[in-house]
Amino acid sequence: MHFSVTILGNNSAIPSPDRFPTSQVVNYENQAFLVDCGEGTQIQMSKFRIRKSRIDHIFISHLHGDHYFGLIGLINSFNLSQRTEALHIYAPAELESILQLQLQCAATTLQFPLHFHALRYPQHQVIADLPNLTISCFPTRHRILCFGFIFEEKPRKRHVIAEKAQQAGVPVSFYKNLQNGEDYISPTGNVIPNASLTLPPPKPRKYCYCADTLYDESLITYISGSDLVYHETTYLQQDLNRAVERYHSTTIQAATLARKALGNSGKLLIGHFSSRYEHLEVFEAECRTVFPETYLAIQGATYFIGTPWKERI
Amino acid sequence: MHFSVTILGNNSAIPSPDRFPTSQVVNYENQAFLVDCGEGTQIQMSKFRIRKSRIDHIFISHLHGDHYFGLIGLINSFNLSQRTEALHIYAPAELESILQLQLQCAATTLQFPLHFHALRYPQHQVIADLPNLTISCFPTRHRILCFGFIFEEKPRKRHVIAEKAQQAGVPVSFYKNLQNGEDYISPTGNVIPNASLTLPPPKPRKYCYCADTLYDESLITYISGSDLVYHETTYLQQDLNRAVERYHSTTIQAATLARKALGNSGKLLIGHFSSRYEHLEVFEAECRTVFPETYLAIQGATYFIGTPWKERI
Repeated sequence: MHFSVTILGNNSAIPSPDRFPTSQVVNYENQAFLVDCGEGTQIQMSKFRIRKSRIDHIFISHLHGDHYFGLIGLINSFNLSQRTEALHIYAPAELESILQLQLQCAATTLQFPLHFHALRYPQHQVIADLPNLTISCFPTRHRILCFGFIFEEKPRKRHVIAEKAQQAGVPVSFYKNLQNGEDYISPTGNVIPNASLTLPPPKPRKYCYCADTLYDESLITYISGSDLVYHETTYLQQDLNRAVERYHSTTIQAATLARKALGNSGKLLIGHFSSRYEHLEVFEAECRTVFPETYLAIQGATYFIGTPWKERI
Repeated sequence: MHFSVTILGNNSAIPSPDRFPTSQVVNYENQAFLVDCGEGTQIQMSKFRIRKSRIDHIFISHLHGDHYFGLIGLINSFNLSQRTEALHIYAPAELESILQLQLQCAATTLQFPLHFHALRYPQHQVIADLPNLTISCFPTRHRILCFGFIFEEKPRKRHVIAEKAQQAGVPVSFYKNLQNGEDYISPTGNVIPNASLTLPPPKPRKYCYCADTLYDESLITYISGSDLVYHETTYLQQDLNRAVERYHSTTIQAATLARKALGNSGKLLIGHFSSRYEHLEVFEAECRTVFPETYLAIQGATYFIGTPWKERI
C-alpha cells in the first residue's frame, strides 16, 4: 500500500515564484488528501502532475491566508471541470461562510456536493473514518484556532501462510477466520494455533502534520509513534525571539520536539520557511544537530511514510 | 511620460503553470495601477519584478474568481511587508464584505488605510481623478455585474518655444500664461499670438480595458479614441456558440469591435484565453484578418500606450 506525502508549497506567508505557500498532498493508494491550500496550489498541482480528480478530501489547518487562499480557486476549477463527485472539506467553521459568500458573489452553483465538516473544538477528534485510514485532528498552539492532522493506517489482517494452512488441512473457507486471529480446530479436535499458520500484519503507519505552531510539548502525545512528522520551521534558531513573537517555531525547536516524541525512530519533515531566508540547506543542518533524520520539504518531492527510504521509487 | 501596460496573467478561468488568470499593471510614470488580480498575481509580480510598493490603486472588474482571487493574498503581503501607504480598491461592492470577512477570520488588522470604492451602478463614471490621469469605469455585458476601465491622460499644457519667446521679449514670468494658451501683449501694445510662441501639447493618450464581455456595440463609445484597447478573446471564432453561452467574446468579435470603434488608428490587445487552447498564435492571426493592429497579451510583456511602437525601449 503506497503511503506518502508530496510537497506543493513550502513557504510561509509571502509567496515567491520559487516557493509557494503551504500545501501538500497525502497519497494513500489511489487516493489523494490535500492538506492546506495556499495561493497557487492548483497551479502547483498542474506543474507536478497531481490529478485533481483524485482529491475528495481537503484539510485546512487554520484561516491564515497562506494556508487556504488557494482553496476557492481550486473549488472553482473543480466546478468548471465538470466534477460531479462529492468533496469533503475539514476546516475551522468560519471558512464555510467565506466560501459561500464567494460563490454567491460570482452567482456560482456548484455542480457537485460539497460537504463542509466544521472543526470547532480545539481537541483531538476523529474527523474521517475511511476503509483503510483514520484521520484525526488535534489543536496546535498558534495565534488563531489551528489544527494538526494525523493520518493513521487501520490495522491490517494477519497474513495466512497458504502452504502451512494447506498442510494442516484448513479449508479455504476458514482463511478469513485465520486472518482475524482465530486458531483452527480440526475435525478430530486438534487445536492448531493461529500463530503457526499466519504472519502478523505490518505495523500500521502514521503521518502527523503539525501545521503552524509554537514549540509545544503537549503535541508529543499526537506525534508519538509516527513514521513521519511534518513540523514547521519558519525560522532558524538565531531568530528564536521572532518565532515566539509570531507563534512559530525554529529549527532546533522542531528537532527537539521530534527527538522527544520519536526517540530514535521516525523521520522529521520541515517546511513553512520564512521568505527572509534565500537558502534552505541550513534549516536541515541545524535540525540534524538534534534529530539526524530531518529532511527539507522540497516542492514537487514525495516522501514515503513508513517505507524504508532506500526502497523509494 | 511613460504610459504602458504590463501583462501578468492572460488566461481565463482555470490557471496553468504557464498561463495565470487575468491581471495587468498599467504604468504611468512612476505609478502602477493594478487591473484585476487573479490567483497568483503577486507571484507574477515578483517574477516580472513589478515593485508592489508602486501600487496604490487596484481595479477589479467583476467578482468571478479568475479576476480577484489573488487580491486578498496581495493585501496580506502588503501588510506583512509593513506597508503604511493608503491603498485604494475600486470594485463591485460585495468584494468589501469578502475581504473584511477574510481579514476578520485571520484576526488581521491592516497596518495601512484601505479605502474601498464600491462600484454599484452599471454606468460610465469617473472613479479616480488624479493629477495626470482620469480613470473611469463603464459597464460591460457579462453574466454578473462587470466593469471596464478607461485610463485617460489629462490634457497637458502648451510647450513654450523658448527661443521665440526670448526673441519676442516675453518675460519668463509670463511663460505659465503662454502654456495656458494666452497671447502675449508687449509693453508697446503689440499682440503676439500664442500660436507663434508655443507648440500644442501632444494628444492625450487613452487606454481602455474591456474586461469580460459579450460582443457589445454599446462599448464603442468608450473604446473610441483609444490608443490601445484590451478586449477579451476567450474563444476562437469556431467556438462562437460557446462564447455566447458563457458571456464571452471570440477573436473576430473583438477585432470587429476594434475596427468599428477605432477605424484605422489604435491597437488591440487580446487576452483571457480559454485553457482549451494550447497555442495562442491563431488568436492573433484570426483577429488580424479584421483588425491588423492586433497583438497577443503575453505574460511579462509591456505594451506602450500611444507611443509609436518602433520607439519601444
